[in-house]
Amino acid sequence: MNPARERAVVLVSGGMDSCVTAAVAVRTCDLAFLHVSYGQRTEGKERACFDALADHFAVADRLVARLDHLRTIGGSSLTDHAIPVPPAAARSVDEASSRRRGIPPTYVPFRNAQLLAAAVAWAEVIGAASVWIGAVEEDSSGYPDCRREFYDLFERVIDAGTRPETSIRIETPVIGMSKTDIVKRGLELGAPFQLTWSCYQSEKIACGACESCALRLRAFARAGAADPLRYADPGSRPA
Amino acid sequence: MNPARERAVVLVSGGMDSCVTAAVAVRTCDLAFLHVSYGQRTEGKERACFDALADHFAVADRLVARLDHLRTIGGSSLTDHAIPVPPAAARSVDEASSRRRGIPPTYVPFRNAQLLAAAVAWAEVIGAASVWIGAVEEDSSGYPDCRREFYDLFERVIDAGTRPETSIRIETPVIGMSKTDIVKRGLELGAPFQLTWSCYQSEKIACGACESCALRLRAFARAGAADPLRYADPGSRPA
Repeated sequence: MNPARERAVVLVSGGMDSCVTAAVAVRTCDLAFLHVSYGQRTEGKERACFDALADHFAVADRLVARLDHLRTIGGSSLTDHAIPVPPAAARSVDEASSRRRGIPPTYVPFRNAQLLAAAVAWAEVIGAASVWIGAVEEDSSGYPDCRREFYDLFERVIDAGTRPETSIRIETPVIGMSKTDIVKRGLELGAPFQLTWSCYQSEKIACGACESCALRLRAFARAGAADPLRYADPGSRPA
Repeated sequence: MNPARERAVVLVSGGMDSCVTAAVAVRTCDLAFLHVSYGQRTEGKERACFDALADHFAVADRLVARLDHLRTIGGSSLTDHAIPVPPAAARSVDEASSRRRGIPPTYVPFRNAQLLAAAVAWAEVIGAASVWIGAVEEDSSGYPDCRREFYDLFERVIDAGTRPETSIRIETPVIGMSKTDIVKRGLELGAPFQLTWSCYQSEKIACGACESCALRLRAFARAGAADPLRYADPGSRPA
């Protein structure tokens, strides 16, 4: 740990947005990685990606928090297996149209507030000055807790709800980017996309058909780059 | 469940503040009770009180969420057994002086944000219109996440971070009360104080010496009422 560098907690799901977020953060901060397990369908694979990413970025401070009540609460196709994950074809994946399409069934109720609250608690104890999260507003699935306004307000809640001497910023370096720009930025920074996972449905070979796979495949295609992952349904790759 | 009554999630720790909060909420709402276990010293006793209170208020919808990462994170004498719980004598328990005394070692980093986030997730899925928490600002131990400003801001985070059709208020009916007034209000409402627990230190017989016991004992004394709990250190009872 370099004492001249700021300490930062990075929320690392194992997906490509948090991977690129970590690649941005590591340029200026000493990192601590937090992964949150909440009974999502692909948790085993995401956890393995978290560890691989922490190894890649040489991050020793790692914490895995379990929020099993999110599975009990349900209300999302990611945590309640009785609610199907919709194929991308069922929803338009046009960029910047997410807000017009409503909230998808993959929305996990108020999930990011719980992720941030855990990250802030850890940051306060280890003296980190920032919490980083790979939320994407513009080109995302339309989750309300991925919007910039949510993070701006949450930062004020941190100021009100922690010790007077605690000051923790929320950093969202990819929030305004398209998925295509996130891929491009990651490639510039040498982000290890081969260690990430995006599929909502499968832990073995990415399905290529769910909305998360569709957004990822389109982003790599538009960035003119090859996605290092294998897909079960290569027919779904955009031309 | 009466369909004409609002549904509400009440955070029930098992202490007297959440007991009185539930006694207020039950007058107008159909209740769901949420208890959060986070590795605190007296968790077993608090959990037993939660169940006894749920039975008393005839609440069928019960959820226990585990936030074990708070124990891993530590930073508080309630979750890290290497940090002692200070006796009340070490800190003044004068009413309304908490903010001058600084943040006590029993502060659990950003705990109430995590409690609220879990409660809001559940409230969103079951269609509850409010989340109730027995936070006390004026006559408390000086926790930053017990201040009214924190809850006002958190309500705005809920609006920003949940579905557009979701509207969840935070209700803090005892936040401005002294502990003495909370006892008086609970007695008026028939709140079952015999089913509650306040001691930070012990799960068997309340120590009578920690700050939480001291605040409770003084409140009952000032309210001119007998505390139904037994204390190990009756010498600490205020005259």
